[in-house]
Amino acid sequence: MTNPLSHLCIHTMTTKPWSLAQAIDGYAKAGVEGITVWRQHLAPAGAKAAGAMLRESGLKVVSLCRGGFFPALTRADRRKALDDNRAAIDEAAEIDAPLIVLVCGAVPGLDLAEARKQIVEGIAAVLPHAEEAGVKLSIEPLHPMYADARSAVNTLEEANNMVDSLASPSVGVTVDVYHVWWDPHLEREIHRAGRSILSFHICDWRTPTRDMLNDRVLMGEGCIPIRRIRSWVEQAGFRGFREVEIFSDERWAQDQARFVEDIKRAYVEHS
Amino acid sequence: MTNPLSHLCIHTMTTKPWSLAQAIDGYAKAGVEGITVWRQHLAPAGAKAAGAMLRESGLKVVSLCRGGFFPALTRADRRKALDDNRAAIDEAAEIDAPLIVLVCGAVPGLDLAEARKQIVEGIAAVLPHAEEAGVKLSIEPLHPMYADARSAVNTLEEANNMVDSLASPSVGVTVDVYHVWWDPHLEREIHRAGRSILSFHICDWRTPTRDMLNDRVLMGEGCIPIRRIRSWVEQAGFRGFREVEIFSDERWAQDQARFVEDIKRAYVEHS
Repeated sequence: MTNPLSHLCIHTMTTKPWSLAQAIDGYAKAGVEGITVWRQHLAPAGAKAAGAMLRESGLKVVSLCRGGFFPALTRADRRKALDDNRAAIDEAAEIDAPLIVLVCGAVPGLDLAEARKQIVEGIAAVLPHAEEAGVKLSIEPLHPMYADARSAVNTLEEANNMVDSLASPSVGVTVDVYHVWWDPHLEREIHRAGRSILSFHICDWRTPTRDMLNDRVLMGEGCIPIRRIRSWVEQAGFRGFREVEIFSDERWAQDQARFVEDIKRAYVEHS
Repeated sequence: MTNPLSHLCIHTMTTKPWSLAQAIDGYAKAGVEGITVWRQHLAPAGAKAAGAMLRESGLKVVSLCRGGFFPALTRADRRKALDDNRAAIDEAAEIDAPLIVLVCGAVPGLDLAEARKQIVEGIAAVLPHAEEAGVKLSIEPLHPMYADARSAVNTLEEANNMVDSLASPSVGVTVDVYHVWWDPHLEREIHRAGRSILSFHICDWRTPTRDMLNDRVLMGEGCIPIRRIRSWVEQAGFRGFREVEIFSDERWAQDQARFVEDIKRAYVEHS
């Protein structure tokens, strides 16, 4: 019998109140196989110590979140973003994360087409560093409601175009159901992405959503056809983890160990 | 010298606290040429009396908001939606509104592709009634953040596809900068829409947006390139009103006559 929790990964941001040590302990005890580490959870211990803890735990590090935020209004700020992405690549290598998820960035008032150009240039600039470190860079299209200040890459089509233009096996895409579920071209673009799909994030969309950032819900509690999107991703050749990434003020106020149990149930029943 | 307020239209929902009579009076005094009437502002007086008031005022009625909401989980509810749209068409005719804006509808848990199919069928079903009444039906793509419960039509491309498949001079599209500004295919789809652009709505996107429904801001207070989008719409052949449609709890709490003065300034300076 297959383990029903096989391929389950949880983002440390999903259990935001937990330190990295608590998350490692909590996930391992709950039988979760994979962990995606957010940089703010790495920071207190540092990447080196965190890497040792993670290797010790037996958890599989699925990815590091997050790099990106390339566009800026000044050259100095664009350079700073490149330095920060190179630092993230080093951290990913320290914790054996095979990839970094890129939230590509946007700046209110900066033309979106210009922002997209700066994103491609930014990825190209840090790509040699990533290739040398053996870390892949994964472009995550973000929901259009984040086009003002978080990402100018708002459809999988746009992300695929960037992967095409960067033409490196070290660059791919992340499909997060929360960001892309509404897109009439989603199936087509998932098939187009094919093997360049490097990771797959799940959660659900609440109706009504009360907060644009921190009101995601568990799989099955919203309107996203998660199983259908998963089937497209798997038809495209993806065989990796299903990563549970839920930002929720409501859930963060609860007991996190019980939340992990709820995640396990929702994972089995609705993903 | 051209009147700098030429082609300014305000939606009654923009000054939501005002009754229709107050809006008519306030707009006329302020030198606003056009009015788009929301059905909730028609309801108290009824369409017949409202039509008389509007004709008396000299304001040009630009459109009636809103029809749509075609998809439903049961046949009975779909039929009810058709009846309601036919009633809206009759109201539009009563007040000399040349078109009805369609917020096409979506139902949480109803597959988006199925919802889109029901939308096209719904428009087709009420189209003869609209043609007979001399009222056009304008499909307004809504921002993808409303794909769960308000509209399964979330890009201008999708709206254009529907216009193509309905193939009637009485069906067109509404371009609202708030809903479409993020779209990388916006320029292409505006040119594709061409003369089927029946109306053009303006406002701006606040960063950060604190409420998904009622936190729109005045032109110039956000990040939308309104003038660029306007230039595309005009290149496509559109010569109609620029309709100010702002839902804002903050603004609705203020003096509405002063708000109208702010709208006039923003219209001249940023649209």
